[in-house]
Amino acid sequence: MNYPYPTRREFIRKSAQTAALLALPNFLYSAGPTHESPKLGVALLGLGNYATNQLAPSFAHTRHCRLAGIVTGSPEKADSWKKRYQIPDNNIYDYDNFDSIKDNPDIDVVYVVTPNALHLPFAARAARAGKHVICEKPMEISVGRCRQMIEACEKAGVKLQIGYRLQYDPFHQELKRLGTEQIYGKVKVIHSAFSFYGINSDNWRFTDPKLSGGGPLMDVGIYCIQGARYATGEEPMAITAQGYKSIPEKLPGMEETICWQMEFPGGAVANCTSSYVAHDNHIRVSAEKGAYGLYPAFTYGTLAGYVNDQSMGEHSHHQQAAQMDAFALNITQDTPVVASGEEGMRDMKYIEAIYEAARTGERVELPG
Amino acid sequence: MNYPYPTRREFIRKSAQTAALLALPNFLYSAGPTHESPKLGVALLGLGNYATNQLAPSFAHTRHCRLAGIVTGSPEKADSWKKRYQIPDNNIYDYDNFDSIKDNPDIDVVYVVTPNALHLPFAARAARAGKHVICEKPMEISVGRCRQMIEACEKAGVKLQIGYRLQYDPFHQELKRLGTEQIYGKVKVIHSAFSFYGINSDNWRFTDPKLSGGGPLMDVGIYCIQGARYATGEEPMAITAQGYKSIPEKLPGMEETICWQMEFPGGAVANCTSSYVAHDNHIRVSAEKGAYGLYPAFTYGTLAGYVNDQSMGEHSHHQQAAQMDAFALNITQDTPVVASGEEGMRDMKYIEAIYEAARTGERVELPG
Repeated sequence: MNYPYPTRREFIRKSAQTAALLALPNFLYSAGPTHESPKLGVALLGLGNYATNQLAPSFAHTRHCRLAGIVTGSPEKADSWKKRYQIPDNNIYDYDNFDSIKDNPDIDVVYVVTPNALHLPFAARAARAGKHVICEKPMEISVGRCRQMIEACEKAGVKLQIGYRLQYDPFHQELKRLGTEQIYGKVKVIHSAFSFYGINSDNWRFTDPKLSGGGPLMDVGIYCIQGARYATGEEPMAITAQGYKSIPEKLPGMEETICWQMEFPGGAVANCTSSYVAHDNHIRVSAEKGAYGLYPAFTYGTLAGYVNDQSMGEHSHHQQAAQMDAFALNITQDTPVVASGEEGMRDMKYIEAIYEAARTGERVELPG
Repeated sequence: MNYPYPTRREFIRKSAQTAALLALPNFLYSAGPTHESPKLGVALLGLGNYATNQLAPSFAHTRHCRLAGIVTGSPEKADSWKKRYQIPDNNIYDYDNFDSIKDNPDIDVVYVVTPNALHLPFAARAARAGKHVICEKPMEISVGRCRQMIEACEKAGVKLQIGYRLQYDPFHQELKRLGTEQIYGKVKVIHSAFSFYGINSDNWRFTDPKLSGGGPLMDVGIYCIQGARYATGEEPMAITAQGYKSIPEKLPGMEETICWQMEFPGGAVANCTSSYVAHDNHIRVSAEKGAYGLYPAFTYGTLAGYVNDQSMGEHSHHQQAAQMDAFALNITQDTPVVASGEEGMRDMKYIEAIYEAARTGERVELPG
């Protein structure tokens, strides 16, 4: 047989020529005369690594919201944030006085960036205070707790977004377009893996299953679930999974490596992996008439795409700014949230199914 | 979290600088004063696509063997081969008179390139005729038939090689070295997929399960099994697998897409896929301190390798020439065959386990 496969040599040679091969959708900043609106005030709740190193700096690139406040359980952190981001004393809360944020008109949105199992209580308190809520992914640690969060926000009449930054990235939107519009025919096989070597960290993610709710699947594998879903535009109908552990004394109560397969109604299969002892960061989609993907696919910095081994170019999108700006427009224009609570809960349903399949060895069918 | 992952931009930028990063082993042509030996005569048996377009032209690059004869069930093919490769009439056989090859001192080796389920009868006839045997992969369609082939060759006192061309490729040997010498620490997670879109072909591979013995796993997935085995230097101790079919009327009696996971004693996991409706051709190894792989990994043309997203360079090795020359030296120097019959039978054991796991949904443990 001759495999009709372009070589890497061809790929690299053509990359430079074809960086602009595909026009990526320019989805943002085109939603009307929003420059007239005041920027919504966002308070970050939970000042860990992600809030500190990704979210706070990203407000330098937002057009429809601004960093207005902080809520922290570590008051010693307040001083440096106050100075760095000119946050007024009135907009600084701790976990005890947080509920009084309801009286602060300068704060429109609370972005919950705590460990996973604390998302629900803080999101619910924010909602009860009348604030719109962004909740970092994974939404929570069970479908039941996701549902409670949705209900709390509905009851309070506030909007809820899950921190799926990549749903607002043009490359990921292009994956969705290529699949759902069947540009290369029907999607047949998807490979995706997102892993990093984190087993020796003492962060709660790796040491406290009550806070994390699980291992790499909860933390980063969730991006592969997302990717497979929007690459097909479908919801999986059955799942198989396999969990592994090579270092038993680490990662208490959670998987070290997990593989899972998702079967989609249109005939596509996604074979995915997530691990705390590996180095992976890709999604690749095989359709009838070609293959395309992203590598790197899921990290914060530069992402790169390809179609049939020709580069789609690369970019370093302001993922978090795009995500928060989209939510600000959802609020000011009262439009539906793309990365909604329902979307977060859906992934939690698949995560529960993956864990069940790994535990039992059984194929888990999902109600349509 | 910050994922310590080089970007594709960095990867591509560095590729040119680091093409010579790793000295690849120069394993061939260093085995003594073999230039003094006459070239062994090889007869190709089964003049299909692979024999015609890959094996026959590869003799332009062999140093220790030459194309000396043909054995064909389609006598109308003989004329063009005779002219193109100057094959004497005495060295042209059909399937009826093939056994008389025993009296032909010009033929040392018979290379069996028939459909899979015909490998055993032709290999056994070649062995009984006193000829050394190369048998194309997959070795046969069951472990039992592989064993019969080994026994036939042992009984006849001839050597047996399986057509694992990539075992003789420097990139694949480098994969083995990086893993077994733990250059980047212990191997943890392997991804490999080899697939192509072949569902509409009427070749026996896709239409006749009695000849093929299976689908893409038998045909190309076997390279992923090989890759995972030499990337770890270990034999798998357990296997899970999942088979899929999206177009029921095609590929009778065989899988369309199959995913499988192999657990290795040292703690590594390989998650693999092979399909006749996809486009994949890679192996990626995550070890404790880094990741490396090949892409393209398994095809005939240019292969390319990388370590931690830096290029290992690329090459277009004469895979079949290297494989056949190595076998010729095994014969003239009476040394062990690397891609031995035992090696082919081992893969068949794993293929049977994968099919069993896919059929039953059970994890199949393998005796050590």
